[in-house]
Amino acid sequence: MAPTALDRLVDQAAAGGVRAAGRLISAIEDDAPVRRELAARLAPVTGRAHVVGLTGAPGVGKSSTVAGLVGLFREAGRRVGVLALDPSSPFTGGALLGDRVRMQRFATDDKVFIRSMSSRGALGGLSAAAPQALRVFDLIGCDVVLVETVGVGQSEVDVVDASDTTVVLLAPGMGDGVQAAKAGVLEIADLFCVNKADRDGAQAVVRELRTTVALTSRAPGQWKPPVLTTVAATGEGLPALVEALDRHRAHAEADGTRGRRRVRRARVEVEALVVGTLRARWSRGQTGLDALAAEVAAGRLDPYAAADTVLARS
Amino acid sequence: MAPTALDRLVDQAAAGGVRAAGRLISAIEDDAPVRRELAARLAPVTGRAHVVGLTGAPGVGKSSTVAGLVGLFREAGRRVGVLALDPSSPFTGGALLGDRVRMQRFATDDKVFIRSMSSRGALGGLSAAAPQALRVFDLIGCDVVLVETVGVGQSEVDVVDASDTTVVLLAPGMGDGVQAAKAGVLEIADLFCVNKADRDGAQAVVRELRTTVALTSRAPGQWKPPVLTTVAATGEGLPALVEALDRHRAHAEADGTRGRRRVRRARVEVEALVVGTLRARWSRGQTGLDALAAEVAAGRLDPYAAADTVLARS
Repeated sequence: MAPTALDRLVDQAAAGGVRAAGRLISAIEDDAPVRRELAARLAPVTGRAHVVGLTGAPGVGKSSTVAGLVGLFREAGRRVGVLALDPSSPFTGGALLGDRVRMQRFATDDKVFIRSMSSRGALGGLSAAAPQALRVFDLIGCDVVLVETVGVGQSEVDVVDASDTTVVLLAPGMGDGVQAAKAGVLEIADLFCVNKADRDGAQAVVRELRTTVALTSRAPGQWKPPVLTTVAATGEGLPALVEALDRHRAHAEADGTRGRRRVRRARVEVEALVVGTLRARWSRGQTGLDALAAEVAAGRLDPYAAADTVLARS
Repeated sequence: MAPTALDRLVDQAAAGGVRAAGRLISAIEDDAPVRRELAARLAPVTGRAHVVGLTGAPGVGKSSTVAGLVGLFREAGRRVGVLALDPSSPFTGGALLGDRVRMQRFATDDKVFIRSMSSRGALGGLSAAAPQALRVFDLIGCDVVLVETVGVGQSEVDVVDASDTTVVLLAPGMGDGVQAAKAGVLEIADLFCVNKADRDGAQAVVRELRTTVALTSRAPGQWKPPVLTTVAATGEGLPALVEALDRHRAHAEADGTRGRRRVRRARVEVEALVVGTLRARWSRGQTGLDALAAEVAAGRLDPYAAADTVLARS
């Protein structure tokens, strides 16, 4: 892409153009030189949008919740973005028909900008690509960006962990899923949302979460994660979720959490870019990594010794 | 841990001691100096065991399949290991009671060695820890190691991708799950296994997979992934799965695939060790990463420029 073409896309996106924004995100995903060029242009776009990470096991109702939230934000006249990092999200094509139909109604609303990315698809991995994509959401003037992830895998956790507000979704009767969520992502939640709250066992999940929250020590004035209940399929409880998101946004801005998380997000991004640069060097064979790996595989070289050699040559 | 204590553990594990093996893997997970020391001792352990990666969305029946396979390998007198990389696996504590009970019967069999690891728990991430753990499975004389992963997240994919044989599990009626599996992991499968084959829709999944396999071009003599059907809960189809695993093992050994994958596994491991070393340096503040990240977060510095600076100082 020529620099002038890139400038034009940036201008169009800055004027709110969702098609231009889509092309910019595609470039971030798979065009390394453009991405670098674009980074310099977007660097001053520091992020007015409230980045909300939503995570939870498949089946808890993330997509229905996202769809419901998008509807509420639009009713309030707020411009909203969705960045789906979940390979099973309807936005990435893999989903039940019902979910796709549910999102269809936003297809003609140019105040809703929806994109998906996956760790396997994105150049340099999600940790590098997602923060850059978020700048594009900011550029077009999104007030809120909902980042949907499945919550498994380190890069997904890194991304959601660096959100301004992190919502952990659970549902009753999920077996494995609820347990997994508990084991891995409880500590990063700013809000808990027990979806499918009309089902058996929902109150038990709520009680358990409230006990967990109550047992966690926190400083005076520190945010205490509320436990909300929703039935995303009918919209029940979603207005209270919007309200809690806004409350956390204000709290995090006031106590400095927002600023600290943004530094963390930038840190994750910079680290990912460094690692990406190194991997590219290794792939070009500059460090003899392949020959060293062959020696390790044959049992003739200790992997740490191989790593020391690669590092010295990088 | 003193070097002599480490030597003793290695000797005990080499004599088949599962308790010593368990302690070695714990050290790999969370004791960096011991891990490095251990790597030199284990480097010559080049991997006699057949490493089988099993991946699939939560709910397809990975754990039941693993339990069934372990039973069959034991009946055949083969020593077998299980490395569970799935946070929702019963081996990691988060699971339905039925699964736990199913694995209970192996608790007293010292020819079965079961361990779990998660990307969040393991020092340096799964990509560094899992290959080292696999050497311990080899050390104690496992003939087969079943590596169970949820198949989401880059490090999980890297690990399963570097198996000697990769089994992708699917099930009918999974909606999101099947779609996700299709989108992400189809290309790495050496064997497809449609579990819950007694349910409605199983034949449609089988047909679709067979069509996909038939449409993929491959060189003459190249392995063609079979599509198997199982009902892991009853054991139906599992003997045919064992047979297919052994067939792929022989094929991959004959055509050099096994050797190439082992080099790839070593490469992933060495890369992860290099990245781990760098991250440790960054955390110690040697490169000024935090200050640079703050500049990026404030919009005063382009993330690529920050990455260049970190790289120059690393």
